Amino acid sequence: MVRNVGFKSQEKVESALKKIFRNVKVIGVEEVSVYNSAGRVLAEDIVANFDLPTLDRSAMDGYAVKAEETFGASETNPIMLKIIGEVRVGELPSVEVESGSAVKVFTGSVLPKGANAVVMLEFTKSFGDFVEIFRSVTPFKNVLRAGEDVRKGEVVLKRGEIIQPQDAGILASLGFEKLKVYKKPVVAVISTGNELVEIWKKLEGAKIYNSNNPMLCNAILSLGFSAKSLGITRDDPREIENKLLEALSFDMLIFTGGTSVGAHDYVPEVVSKHGEILFHGVAMKPGMPTAFGIVRDKPVFMLPGSPSACLLAFETFVVPALYRMMNVRIVERKGALKKGVLQSRIPSELGVRSYVRVYWDNGKVYPVRISGSGILSSLVKANALLIIPENLEGYEAGEEVEVMLIRDLTEVFE
Amino acid sequence: MVRNVGFKSQEKVESALKKIFRNVKVIGVEEVSVYNSAGRVLAEDIVANFDLPTLDRSAMDGYAVKAEETFGASETNPIMLKIIGEVRVGELPSVEVESGSAVKVFTGSVLPKGANAVVMLEFTKSFGDFVEIFRSVTPFKNVLRAGEDVRKGEVVLKRGEIIQPQDAGILASLGFEKLKVYKKPVVAVISTGNELVEIWKKLEGAKIYNSNNPMLCNAILSLGFSAKSLGITRDDPREIENKLLEALSFDMLIFTGGTSVGAHDYVPEVVSKHGEILFHGVAMKPGMPTAFGIVRDKPVFMLPGSPSACLLAFETFVVPALYRMMNVRIVERKGALKKGVLQSRIPSELGVRSYVRVYWDNGKVYPVRISGSGILSSLVKANALLIIPENLEGYEAGEEVEVMLIRDLTEVFE
Repeated sequence: MVRNVGFKSQEKVESALKKIFRNVKVIGVEEVSVYNSAGRVLAEDIVANFDLPTLDRSAMDGYAVKAEETFGASETNPIMLKIIGEVRVGELPSVEVESGSAVKVFTGSVLPKGANAVVMLEFTKSFGDFVEIFRSVTPFKNVLRAGEDVRKGEVVLKRGEIIQPQDAGILASLGFEKLKVYKKPVVAVISTGNELVEIWKKLEGAKIYNSNNPMLCNAILSLGFSAKSLGITRDDPREIENKLLEALSFDMLIFTGGTSVGAHDYVPEVVSKHGEILFHGVAMKPGMPTAFGIVRDKPVFMLPGSPSACLLAFETFVVPALYRMMNVRIVERKGALKKGVLQSRIPSELGVRSYVRVYWDNGKVYPVRISGSGILSSLVKANALLIIPENLEGYEAGEEVEVMLIRDLTEVFE
Repeated sequence: MVRNVGFKSQEKVESALKKIFRNVKVIGVEEVSVYNSAGRVLAEDIVANFDLPTLDRSAMDGYAVKAEETFGASETNPIMLKIIGEVRVGELPSVEVESGSAVKVFTGSVLPKGANAVVMLEFTKSFGDFVEIFRSVTPFKNVLRAGEDVRKGEVVLKRGEIIQPQDAGILASLGFEKLKVYKKPVVAVISTGNELVEIWKKLEGAKIYNSNNPMLCNAILSLGFSAKSLGITRDDPREIENKLLEALSFDMLIFTGGTSVGAHDYVPEVVSKHGEILFHGVAMKPGMPTAFGIVRDKPVFMLPGSPSACLLAFETFVVPALYRMMNVRIVERKGALKKGVLQSRIPSELGVRSYVRVYWDNGKVYPVRISGSGILSSLVKANALLIIPENLEGYEAGEEVEVMLIRDLTEVFE
């Protein structure tokens, strides 16, 4: 390859990434609304200020009772209790369950004092002020206990976690209206080349349209970062220098074109005048004429002008750097399918599709203990989903299953 | 399961999706800037108005020559040509190559008249006005021919394609400043429940914070759609009705809570009063109390109030509906890893990481023909990337390889 000839040394991709991670730093922390926080990286551990649920609640529609009083109840030998009131969802109980009585409750009702279990509506029959109980319940049956979802003082989410929609849900449940997150970098994009014209101008002679700026701006925007196109500079060291100095007001700079070792490749030279070049020339194809430097603490990427090489170098080096500025390295993106061996049996109802929240760890799949779909933390503690199709009755422990990651797997830098 | 009891019938997940796809329609077409178009769905085929490149160009730094005049050239028997000028990138040639002459060119220079090939700089040595050629070149060697990347009249991207950054690049190259895309739906999110309070208020008594609205707003926003929280309504048919009518100004409505068959579940009843319920009760767990209806042409989703069930039902039904409104069904998301059998040999240089653009089709992997990284269309015609690590010299035809999708695989509805 001709192009190789010019580079004194070619940095290996992994070694180039290490240099980027060592030299790029977090740019700061800011507060965002929990309503628009997905994709942001938490800059603080989140500790629960109170229990979730705050009080014992019924997990079913039915009757709150003293469990002990239902022992021995059956279809043929029902137990009769007096209905002394009801607790509507969202209201505090105004009655107390005493011996021989029951209180009507709904899914989510606060459990009245004196009761310690709920009999499901299906296993009861009411006659005026009285209800027949056809099944016995054990203490705390059909009760979601205070703190069962989240316990006060528990670390719910760790610094460095990329916030998922379900995280926003639990954070809202815990009263976190604002969240401290790492600032997202704003990136300046500059194309260099005498042949380039902007798309809104007329294409004449030997000119070509600037396609790298729209390509990179889209790539940056679609990751949720901000991008600003600073247009085109000619292959002229003075012009490149002026643009470099102007662009230093942004968090990161990307130049494309003029990064090789040809007669008109001035960008690395200009960057080295004002800062330090960490590498120039990478052992990748396409993408070899990629360089990276730091100017006044700002990362400066110099990407090849050839569009395919430019985009591949962007994905390989710039994307990890953007996340580095938010203090995380993405090890695996959510949505990825992972295989793993199920660590305990999961039953499922035939004819129903089950979405089982699991924790995938290095080839092992652990079901996340769940007492009901009301438990929001199950989607926060799980990192993957196991879908059991309608035609299966579940999976046995030891079976290999395929799960889908529902959160990004990340590592924190600082 | 108690909850099942109440549903007259349970719609299977696939059948529910079919009803959604049949009843949800495209909401319109709008124009967006190519600079901010990634993730949007093309509403028109894109046909190239001119060739790319527009003129024959050099793919290397070197000398433009008549190929025939280099035949027989070698290190020991170089051929001497007169340098009659140079063509800088972005300028039209001012000279013509005649017998016995050569013109200096750079990567991207327009090929001067009379020349039909380029000898790479490495295989030449210049002495003043003369250059020694050490290698022969065949006609059009190191030349990127006009139309080689994209030919005038070619369909570059099809209606229904989700625009990727590289697509924005080629669209800009072809002078498309504005693109016709399907409108993105704006979604109204409403929680119902007497127990709910907004996060900015004080939590008292039996109340809990509204977590579904922030959860769903984040889920919608992070997919690139717009969301508006319309707050909380109490479990009151009149209040729900008012909110429904208010929310009909949006493109899609999502209610959470009050969707089951309990005493205080009024949402499906109110929706059916003003429109049609397509299904109520789905054979999925969690997520069974999910309903879907159409009111005055607007899709109305009724999701369970339990947060986990709510989010899983959202992902299962609402996300496909949102894309349905942009006329596509996503079959597979980019980033997914796919296995396939390589259909032809791909060599790679030892010590260099190669990024090979390939087309994955149902278990077969076809390398996309490339004449250089300057060929932008390679990243547009490819749908996947094969990365060859530094320690391999490539892959043989017939080998099974793993590739990563670089564009969403989609199907168009209308």
